[in-house]
Amino acid sequence: MCQLLGMNCNIPTDICFSFSGFHQRGGRTDEHVDGWGIAFYEGVGCRVYLDTKPAAESPVATMVRDYPIRSLNVIAHIRKATVSSVALENTHPFVRELWGRYWTFAHNGTLSNLDCAPEDSNRRYSPVGRTDSEYAFCYLLEMLHRRFPAGEPDEAALYKAMVGITTELCTYGTFNFLLSNGNLLFAHCATKLAYVVREAPFAEAHLVDEDYSVDFRSVTTPQDRVAIIATVPLTDNEPWRTMRASELLLFRNGQPLEY
Amino acid sequence: MCQLLGMNCNIPTDICFSFSGFHQRGGRTDEHVDGWGIAFYEGVGCRVYLDTKPAAESPVATMVRDYPIRSLNVIAHIRKATVSSVALENTHPFVRELWGRYWTFAHNGTLSNLDCAPEDSNRRYSPVGRTDSEYAFCYLLEMLHRRFPAGEPDEAALYKAMVGITTELCTYGTFNFLLSNGNLLFAHCATKLAYVVREAPFAEAHLVDEDYSVDFRSVTTPQDRVAIIATVPLTDNEPWRTMRASELLLFRNGQPLEY
Repeated sequence: MCQLLGMNCNIPTDICFSFSGFHQRGGRTDEHVDGWGIAFYEGVGCRVYLDTKPAAESPVATMVRDYPIRSLNVIAHIRKATVSSVALENTHPFVRELWGRYWTFAHNGTLSNLDCAPEDSNRRYSPVGRTDSEYAFCYLLEMLHRRFPAGEPDEAALYKAMVGITTELCTYGTFNFLLSNGNLLFAHCATKLAYVVREAPFAEAHLVDEDYSVDFRSVTTPQDRVAIIATVPLTDNEPWRTMRASELLLFRNGQPLEY
Repeated sequence: MCQLLGMNCNIPTDICFSFSGFHQRGGRTDEHVDGWGIAFYEGVGCRVYLDTKPAAESPVATMVRDYPIRSLNVIAHIRKATVSSVALENTHPFVRELWGRYWTFAHNGTLSNLDCAPEDSNRRYSPVGRTDSEYAFCYLLEMLHRRFPAGEPDEAALYKAMVGITTELCTYGTFNFLLSNGNLLFAHCATKLAYVVREAPFAEAHLVDEDYSVDFRSVTTPQDRVAIIATVPLTDNEPWRTMRASELLLFRNGQPLEY
C-alpha cells in the first residue's frame, strides 16, 4: 500500500510543513521506499516532480521540502510497490490533459483484472507504465471525456459522473485516490483517508513523523483556509476527520463541498 | 528567442556537465530569464522539472546540476518570453502521451497565426497554455496519431512523416525544435542549432559559459557515445557541427542517422 497527501486551498500556500512530515514515511518512519512524486498547480500550469529513490533520501524531496512553492492544489504520493516494478513510469502522480487542463492522479490500493478502455483508435488515454493505478486513471479520464466531449461540465454534473465512474472502478478492488485539475480536488476513500481543514482561529500543529511544530497564527491571515488530506493524519493535535468508506469528497477553496 | 539543449546517448549518461554551462544562460551569461525546464527519460518513464524562476537562480536547477540523473534522452529549454506570459503552463518542455510513450518537445522561434487541429471532439491533443510552441506540439502529435492510428510506425516512415509535418509548420514562422519519445530524438534546425558527438577517443572539454573543464577520458568507456545538441555550442574546444537550415536529424544511440 502507498500513502497519499493532498492539499486544497483558497489562496496559494506552500506545503513545506506537511511535506516535511509526509516524506519521512518514505523509508524513515514507514516502509514506502519505492519512489515518490508530487504535483503542484500554479494557475492552469502544473509541475510534477518524480523520483525513484525513497522520499526520505531523495535530493528532489530535499529540494521540495526547502523550496516554498505556493499552490492551490497539490497531490503527493509515496509508493510501496505491490503490483508493478519500481520504475519512473510507475511512479505517481500521473498527468494527462483533459478539457484544456492538466489532471493529476495518485492512488492507494490494488485493482485487479482492470483493463483500460476498449482498444480502438478513438481512445484518447493510454497508459505508459504497468500499474493498475495508471490504467484506472486513463479509464476515468476516458469516461469523463466520452460523457462530456464538448468540455468541462458544471461541478454538480462532474461530481455525479465521478461517483458513477468511481463506483464502477471500486468493483475491481481498493480504490483510495486523489484527483485534481488545479481548480478542484477529488478525494475518494475506499479504506483509509482523512482530512483536516485549517482556518481561523489558527493554532499550533505538531507533526507525527518528526518532532516539529508550526504556529499557523504567525504565518496566516484570517481569510486563509487550507484542507490537508492524507492516508494517515500528519499531525497529532489537530481535529482530523476520518473519511467513511465509499465517500467521495470534492474540495474547492480549502473545504469539502456539499453534494 | 529561447535556447535549446538536447542529449541522446547509447548508454544512460548524466547531463550535469552540459547543464552546468547551459543553465548559466538563464540570466547570467545570457538574457533567458523567463523560466526553464528539463525532461529526462528513464526507460519509458519521464521526469520533467519545470520552474518559472530564471535557470541561473532556480533551486530546481541547482538540484538538477548536482543530482546525476542518468538518461538516454534529455531535452532542456530556457525561455525568453516573446509571445506569451511567463507562467508555468507556458514553460517548455511540454509532454503528451502517444502510442504508449511520453513525447516531450521544446521549441525556439516564433510561429504566427497557428491554430491547433480542427475543433472537434475526436481531437486527441489540446494545449493548456498559450504558446505557439505548445500549439505546434499538439498539432504535430495530432497529425502523427491520425497518420498512424494503429501505433508507432518504423523509423523510416516516422522520419518521413515528421519531414512533412515540420515543413508544414515552418510556413508559420521559425521552428527550431527538439522532440523525443525516450528512444529517439528529433532535432530540427530552422535558423540556429548545432551538435557534437562525443565518442572514443575522448578528450577534455571546456565550457563556454563558465571556466570549467571535464576530461571525458576519466569518466567514459570506449563504447560510450553521446550527442549533445544546442542552440549555441556549449564548449569552445570540441568539433561542433552547425546544422543547415531546414535540416531534420533523427538521433539514436548517440548519433544522427542517415535518412
